[in-house]
Amino acid sequence: MRAIVLEDTLHVADVRAPVPEPHEAVIRVQRAGICGTDLAILRGYGDVRGVLGHEFVGEVVEAEMAPQWLGRRVVAEINVSCGRCDRCRDGLGNHCSRREVVGVRGRAGAMAEEVIVPVENLHEVPESVQDDAAVFVEPLAAAFRIAEQLEVTDGTRVGVWGDGRLGLLVVMALATTGCALTVVGRHARKLDLVRATGATLRSSDDVLRTDFDVAIDATGTAQGFADALAHVRPRGTVVVKSTLSEPLSIDPSRLVVDEISVMGSRCGPFEPAIAALAAGTIDPRPLVESVYPLSRGLEAFEHAARPGALKVLLDPRR
Amino acid sequence: MRAIVLEDTLHVADVRAPVPEPHEAVIRVQRAGICGTDLAILRGYGDVRGVLGHEFVGEVVEAEMAPQWLGRRVVAEINVSCGRCDRCRDGLGNHCSRREVVGVRGRAGAMAEEVIVPVENLHEVPESVQDDAAVFVEPLAAAFRIAEQLEVTDGTRVGVWGDGRLGLLVVMALATTGCALTVVGRHARKLDLVRATGATLRSSDDVLRTDFDVAIDATGTAQGFADALAHVRPRGTVVVKSTLSEPLSIDPSRLVVDEISVMGSRCGPFEPAIAALAAGTIDPRPLVESVYPLSRGLEAFEHAARPGALKVLLDPRR
Repeated sequence: MRAIVLEDTLHVADVRAPVPEPHEAVIRVQRAGICGTDLAILRGYGDVRGVLGHEFVGEVVEAEMAPQWLGRRVVAEINVSCGRCDRCRDGLGNHCSRREVVGVRGRAGAMAEEVIVPVENLHEVPESVQDDAAVFVEPLAAAFRIAEQLEVTDGTRVGVWGDGRLGLLVVMALATTGCALTVVGRHARKLDLVRATGATLRSSDDVLRTDFDVAIDATGTAQGFADALAHVRPRGTVVVKSTLSEPLSIDPSRLVVDEISVMGSRCGPFEPAIAALAAGTIDPRPLVESVYPLSRGLEAFEHAARPGALKVLLDPRR
Repeated sequence: MRAIVLEDTLHVADVRAPVPEPHEAVIRVQRAGICGTDLAILRGYGDVRGVLGHEFVGEVVEAEMAPQWLGRRVVAEINVSCGRCDRCRDGLGNHCSRREVVGVRGRAGAMAEEVIVPVENLHEVPESVQDDAAVFVEPLAAAFRIAEQLEVTDGTRVGVWGDGRLGLLVVMALATTGCALTVVGRHARKLDLVRATGATLRSSDDVLRTDFDVAIDATGTAQGFADALAHVRPRGTVVVKSTLSEPLSIDPSRLVVDEISVMGSRCGPFEPAIAALAAGTIDPRPLVESVYPLSRGLEAFEHAARPGALKVLLDPRR
């Protein structure tokens, strides 16, 4: 089958179709998304090799031990944990030290005609949610993760730095909490995409408040993190949401004297993401800039890497 | 009156006795402690000038509007907030941006014959608690702050890096929660001082666990912080408790992939510290290495700055 493979270089290749274990499902991929982590992987992050892709929607075409899934349209959680270690037993399956991560660590990804995941990772996509929206479930779930880690309610003052793919999804997810949202970005066009959330839109050099309860860096840059840290209130929390490749430098006296917390945030719950798409409270489709066939995968990656690019999708059926 | 003053250099000087406002109390100081922050101040931290000292116990000798305090032996909280700003109204008085801090910011400290604090900052010291123990209330309260910020119960695996003044107080405070404590230090003599807490004692290169729920840096060094970060479990918390002067460098992928929190921690609640001293569950007096008269203040600072030195106290009555 055809797939986008990272070896020494990124290329489109014909690879052997994967063979599932009995408890796994084979999914024929209908859409796969290119995200910031994929671009970081190309720059060397995580020393990843193999078929990329961890944001996808598709149809189950094989599921030996769970035939009830056959023909259903699904998205899937990407962490495949061992289920037996202390962390898994403590409810930290996403952090299992033996875990595989679809398209990131030890498991072939979804930028291919087919991808394999354990049946227990599957979530059905409601009929009302189109493929171009459903492909956002994984990154949107990561955005909802913040509200799982921190109390975010209608009184919470939240600032989001970054109007890229991830920043806008974070805004959409947190807007459902009713919190007081400020988005800090550089591109009027992109900020406009989340105007409907009621968020206050600011350019980077026009942020007056320094009393955010929660300041989220979704820029993927050390500068974005520094800006978020500069604008959080004492005892507030800075959330690091991006896959940064440069080290963060923190003034420890800011941390200690103002009792700031800096919190990393990764994968999140699929349920609220799917529910928000089904209810129409979140519609991420305006973020889609283009859909490429798999054969034009390299071109798609070049597009996604352009400064300011939003979501670029792949359609492996074409 | 005699005091230890930092101007261009540190010196013992005769300064004008302070004049209290009506709502303030004058305290005749019986003991003042030298802590890591004082030593950091000497190295330039916070650009502090004036009479140093924020750990003390003494007797109230003047209190115009609250004569019931006269003659009582007290310790005092060191943050003097405005009481009127948004932060103060939100219960963040310790973080009031107009706050003064005794011996640190805008208010003369306690390394003097007398110190002045608002009456509302006072806490009476029970008769059973000797001066050499009571002088630890402020740093011990800072140690108790960790249990206020995080849930620490008898199942929590806590690692404390640092067997200095602060680290040992943190161990004593957290041992009262019944948590599973490991202390990581370099000096068998100092680790012995907290053997009675039941903590597991380890040398720095002999820490096997990497699954601490909470890892506390009380070393005041970037290396101590890095060690704490290396040994915390996914979704665990690293607490930065020391006054570090070097910037912290953090690998953001460790933060994000493992969803670690890094939390600063400063001043804490006096009540549990006083209660533990009164009940005898904590006895910090073995940490006292020496008590100097104020006239030998420079010698006392030199002693406190020696590598491995524990608590050095001043007696301003001598």
